Amino acid sequence: MYQQFVDTCQKLENHYRDMQDIEFTVEKGTLYMLQTRNGKRTARAAVKVAVDMVNEGLITIEEALQRVDAEQLNQLLHRQIDTSVKLEPIAKGLPASPGAACGKVVFDANVAEKLGGAGEKVVLVRSETTPDDIHGIIHAQGVLTSRGGMTSHAAVVARGMGKPCVCGCEVIKIDPSGTQFTVNGLVVKEGDIITIDGATGNVMLGEVPMIEPTLSDEFETLLQWADQVKTVMVRANADTPEDAARAREFGATGIGLCRTEHMFMAQERLPYVQEMIMAESTEERQKPLAKLLEFQRQDFYGILKAMAPYPVTIRLLDPPLHEFLPDHESLLLEIAQLTHENADSKTILEKEEMLKKINSLSEANPMLGHRGCRLGITYPEIYRMQARAIFEALLQLKKENVEAFAEIEIPLVMDISELAMLKAEIESVYEDIKAESGEELKYAVGTMIELPRACITADKIAAEAEFFSFGTNDLTQTTLGFSRDDAEGKFIPVYLEKKILRDNPFAVLDREGVGVLMQIAVEKARSVKPDVLMGICGEHGGEPSSIEFCHMIGLNYVSCSPYRIPVARLAAAQAAIKHKH
Amino acid sequence: MYQQFVDTCQKLENHYRDMQDIEFTVEKGTLYMLQTRNGKRTARAAVKVAVDMVNEGLITIEEALQRVDAEQLNQLLHRQIDTSVKLEPIAKGLPASPGAACGKVVFDANVAEKLGGAGEKVVLVRSETTPDDIHGIIHAQGVLTSRGGMTSHAAVVARGMGKPCVCGCEVIKIDPSGTQFTVNGLVVKEGDIITIDGATGNVMLGEVPMIEPTLSDEFETLLQWADQVKTVMVRANADTPEDAARAREFGATGIGLCRTEHMFMAQERLPYVQEMIMAESTEERQKPLAKLLEFQRQDFYGILKAMAPYPVTIRLLDPPLHEFLPDHESLLLEIAQLTHENADSKTILEKEEMLKKINSLSEANPMLGHRGCRLGITYPEIYRMQARAIFEALLQLKKENVEAFAEIEIPLVMDISELAMLKAEIESVYEDIKAESGEELKYAVGTMIELPRACITADKIAAEAEFFSFGTNDLTQTTLGFSRDDAEGKFIPVYLEKKILRDNPFAVLDREGVGVLMQIAVEKARSVKPDVLMGICGEHGGEPSSIEFCHMIGLNYVSCSPYRIPVARLAAAQAAIKHKH
Repeated sequence: MYQQFVDTCQKLENHYRDMQDIEFTVEKGTLYMLQTRNGKRTARAAVKVAVDMVNEGLITIEEALQRVDAEQLNQLLHRQIDTSVKLEPIAKGLPASPGAACGKVVFDANVAEKLGGAGEKVVLVRSETTPDDIHGIIHAQGVLTSRGGMTSHAAVVARGMGKPCVCGCEVIKIDPSGTQFTVNGLVVKEGDIITIDGATGNVMLGEVPMIEPTLSDEFETLLQWADQVKTVMVRANADTPEDAARAREFGATGIGLCRTEHMFMAQERLPYVQEMIMAESTEERQKPLAKLLEFQRQDFYGILKAMAPYPVTIRLLDPPLHEFLPDHESLLLEIAQLTHENADSKTILEKEEMLKKINSLSEANPMLGHRGCRLGITYPEIYRMQARAIFEALLQLKKENVEAFAEIEIPLVMDISELAMLKAEIESVYEDIKAESGEELKYAVGTMIELPRACITADKIAAEAEFFSFGTNDLTQTTLGFSRDDAEGKFIPVYLEKKILRDNPFAVLDREGVGVLMQIAVEKARSVKPDVLMGICGEHGGEPSSIEFCHMIGLNYVSCSPYRIPVARLAAAQAAIKHKH
Repeated sequence: MYQQFVDTCQKLENHYRDMQDIEFTVEKGTLYMLQTRNGKRTARAAVKVAVDMVNEGLITIEEALQRVDAEQLNQLLHRQIDTSVKLEPIAKGLPASPGAACGKVVFDANVAEKLGGAGEKVVLVRSETTPDDIHGIIHAQGVLTSRGGMTSHAAVVARGMGKPCVCGCEVIKIDPSGTQFTVNGLVVKEGDIITIDGATGNVMLGEVPMIEPTLSDEFETLLQWADQVKTVMVRANADTPEDAARAREFGATGIGLCRTEHMFMAQERLPYVQEMIMAESTEERQKPLAKLLEFQRQDFYGILKAMAPYPVTIRLLDPPLHEFLPDHESLLLEIAQLTHENADSKTILEKEEMLKKINSLSEANPMLGHRGCRLGITYPEIYRMQARAIFEALLQLKKENVEAFAEIEIPLVMDISELAMLKAEIESVYEDIKAESGEELKYAVGTMIELPRACITADKIAAEAEFFSFGTNDLTQTTLGFSRDDAEGKFIPVYLEKKILRDNPFAVLDREGVGVLMQIAVEKARSVKPDVLMGICGEHGGEPSSIEFCHMIGLNYVSCSPYRIPVARLAAAQAAIKHKH
C-alpha cells in the first residue's frame, strides 16, 4: 500500500507538473486519495521551483512565469515579520508602506536624525509628518503616524524611500509633551522599542523576529524571462537621482512620473517657495523663481542623467499652493497665544498677514481646487520656470554627450485648450533657449489623463498631446466620488465588509467604472493618433490585476514605485501569456 | 422719398414679421437702406408683442414662443435695478440670487428679525451665514456676504426663498465689532442704507431706483401655449409646503428635488440632529431619531399634500454629518480662551469632547467624502427613520383621501449594490408599515445620477431604480474635477477671460463632457428599462441651453427653483420646436 501511495503521488505530481498537497486515508486496507492541489510555498521557494523545473525541462518558461504569484514577489523585496511567531499587536493602523521596522521610539525629526545618524535604530512617531520631518524620516527605520491616510505625506514619502510606514493609527494618543504615547492604557515612552509592520499595519511592543529580503539568481532569471515575454514596458515613479538609480537596478526602462512638488518641499527651498506664493505681483515673484530655477535645473539634470537614455516624464507643479504654507490651525493658535501674552504688534501683524494668505488660498475641497494645470494657467511664470529648468538641464547633458529625453507633463487637464495654451508657453520657452544656445533639444509635451472629462474628450486632447499618462489615483477619486484621504478611513472598510466593493478601488483598478473610462480614452485617442504613447502612473501601475487590465486595453507602459518594479515585470508577462490568443 | 421710405419699412416688417431696427441714409436725392434687424425690446414688451401678433393672425403660436428670450423672462419675476440710471457700485460680489434689494445694513440675524419683523427694510450683512441665521434671512430684504461661493449657505437659502443675494464679496471687510464694514476706505455703518443687485453682484450705497415685477395676462397666455408645445415636464426644487405652493402657481407639475437636510437645520431640530451624531451607539441614537421622525413626518405630510396628486421626489439625507456641528475654528478658539481664563475643567472637557467629534468627522474633501448614500450604508437607522416618516405621511394622507405620490431618492450612488442594499432597507420599513396599518401605499424608489461611475454603469443601476434624476451640480464637479466652492472664486473667472471656458459649467451644462456622460447613462438605462423616468435636478434644470440639451437626450422632466419655472416652461417649448424634425 505504501508503494501504491508513492506511485499515485508521483502520478499526480507528473500530471499537474507541480508540487502537490495531498490528502488521503487508509480504511480497511484500502488507500483512498481524498484531495490534491498545488502545494503552497513561500515566494522564494516558488521562484526556485519554477526556475529549476524549466532548467530540468519539466515546464516551459511561460509555465514557470505563471507559477509564481506576482504579488508574493513583494515578500522578497522587503524585510518581513516572521509569521511563524505569534504576535500581539498593541495597535493597528493603515499598511502604508510595506516592510517591517524596529527601533527606539522618537517623537522628533531632529532627534531621529541625530540618533539615526549615529547608527541607532529609531522609529519616528508623529501625529502626522510635514516636509520639515524629511531629514528625520531619512534617518529612521520606519514611520508611525496617528493621523492621515494612504496618501498622507508620511505614506507617500515612505513608499518613495522604500521605508516601512504605518499611518492613520488613530488609537495611539501622542502626549502633548512629546515624550510618550498611550494606547489603550499602555504607556510607550521615548526610547522604548517598537516594531511596525507596514504590510499589515500592525504595531508591536519590543523587537519581533524578522526575515531579511534576499534576491536570488533564480529571481533574476525569472524576471529576465518575464521581460522577454511581456509587451507592456515597466517604468518607475521616481523623484530623485537615487530613486532613479534604484529603479534601474530593479529593471525600470524609464520614469513614468517624476513629481516636482517634492523638490519644492525640501527644507532649503521651502522659504523661496513661500516667498513666491506670498508675492503680490508677477515682478515680485521673479526673485524667488530665479532661485528655484537653479535648484530645479540641478534636480532635472540629476534625474535625467541617472535615467538616460530612457525617457523621464516630468510632471509640472501639481498640488495647491496652500500645501507649501504653514498649517492654518497652528498659526491661528499661535496668534491667539501671542495676543494673550501682549506680544509686540509687529510680530502679530506679520503672522496675521501669513494667516490672511493661508485663508485666501484655503479651499473647501482642495482635491478639486486650484491645482494642476490650473496653477499653470493662473501663474504661467511658474510653469515657464520649470520648463526652462528642464531645457537648461537637457542642454547641459547634451554638452556632456549624455543622450537624455524629457517628457514634459501637464497635470489635471480637463479640456484641450488648457493643454494647447500651456504647450504654447513651453514652446515659447524652448524657442528662447534655442535662440540663446543655438542648440536643438529633444523633448515631448503630453498630459495626465486623470479626470473623467479628459477621458470623454480624449480624441480632442490627443491632437495636442504626444503622450497620455493615466493618473488613476485621481481618476478613481473623481469617477467614484471618493476622496481617498477620507474614504479609506471612513467608509471603504464598511463597503468591503458589506461586500459593496470587492477590493479597495485605490489598490485594485475598478475595471467596471474607471476602466471603462480609460478604454473610452484609449479608443478615442488612437482614433486620431494611433501611435500616441500611453501609460499609467497611478499606484495601480504596480498591482497585478490592474497591470493585466492595462495590457488588455493596449497601454504601452505601466509606472510604479521602484520597489514594485519586479512585481510589475512579472505581472506584465503573465498578462501577455494569459491574453496571447 | 418719405413715402418710399415708409413703404420700404412696411415691406421689411412684413417680410420679417417682426418690429425692425432700421438704418438708412439719403444721399444726393437717393434713399439707401443700410441695415435692418429685429428690434430689441424689454421682456415685457417682447411677451406683449408676441401674443398680440398671434391674436392678430400675423404669426403662429410656435413663432410667438420663439420670439421671446427665455432667459429674459427672469426680468419679469424679480425686482430689477432701473438700468437707465447711472450706477456707482462700491463693491461687486457673486450674483448669487437674482433680484434687487434695498434696506438698512444689519450685521446680526436677531436684529434683522426684530427690525424686519417690525416692518423695516433691512439687508443682512455677514461674513457667511449658517443655519442659525435663517430667521434673520427670512426677515431681511436680501443678504450680502463677504465669503462663500454660489453654493454657500447664504446663496442656496436665498435662491430657495427667491430673495436677492450677493455673496463672496471679498472686498468688504466686516469690523470684528459687528457695527460697520469698510470697503476701499469707505466706512458703512449699521443702519446705513445699501442696495444689492443679486443679478449682477453689484453693491450700491443708498437707495437706487427699481422696477417692480409684473406678471401680465399675456405672460400667462404665452406660458400656457408653451405647455401645449413642450414635451419635457417642468418640476420644482422645493423643500417646504410654501415653496411647493409657489411652484404650483408658477406651473410646476411635481417636485423633482426635495432636500431633507434643510429640514434638519431648523433651529428647533438641530439639537436632536447633534445628539444623533454624538451618539456612540445605535441604541443611543434611537431617542433623537424618534424625535426627528415626528418632525420629518410633518415635513413630508405638508409637502406631499401641497403637491398632490403630482409626485414629490424626496432625497434622503445627503450632506456630511459635520455640517450639522459647530464650526471647528470658533470652537478651537473658544477652548483656547477658556483655558487662558482658567475656566472650570468640566466646561472645557465638554467642549473638547465636541471638538474631538468634529475632528473625527472632519474631511479633507467633504464633497467626495462620507455623505450621500454612504451615510445610509453606515447608519441605516437614519435612512430607515426617513423612510418611515415618508410612509407615515402617505398613510395619513390616504386616510384623508389625498392622493399623494412619493419618489424616494437615494443620493450619490456609484454602484448598483449601494442602491440594492438601501432599497431593501426601505422595503423592509414599508413591510412593517403595511403590517401595522393593513394599508398599501404607492411610492417609487430611485436614485440621483451624479457621479461618472453611475453614468458608466447606468444599465446595471437601472435594474433596481424606478427613476433617475441627474444631479448635474455634483456631476459637473466630478467630471471636470472642479469644486464649485473653490472654482467659481479662484479660477473659473480666469478660465472665462482666457476663453478656456465659454460659460461657467455650473450655470450652463457642459455638453461635451458632462453631457456625453448623461447621454451614455440615458442610452444604457433605456437599453434595459425603456420606460425608466428620467429628469434633471441640478441648477441646469432652469437654464435654457441646458434644458434644450435635456430635451435632445430625451429626459422626461427638468426640475428647477420655483422662480425659474416660467423660464423652464418657455425654454422647453422652444427646444421642442427647434428639434421637431
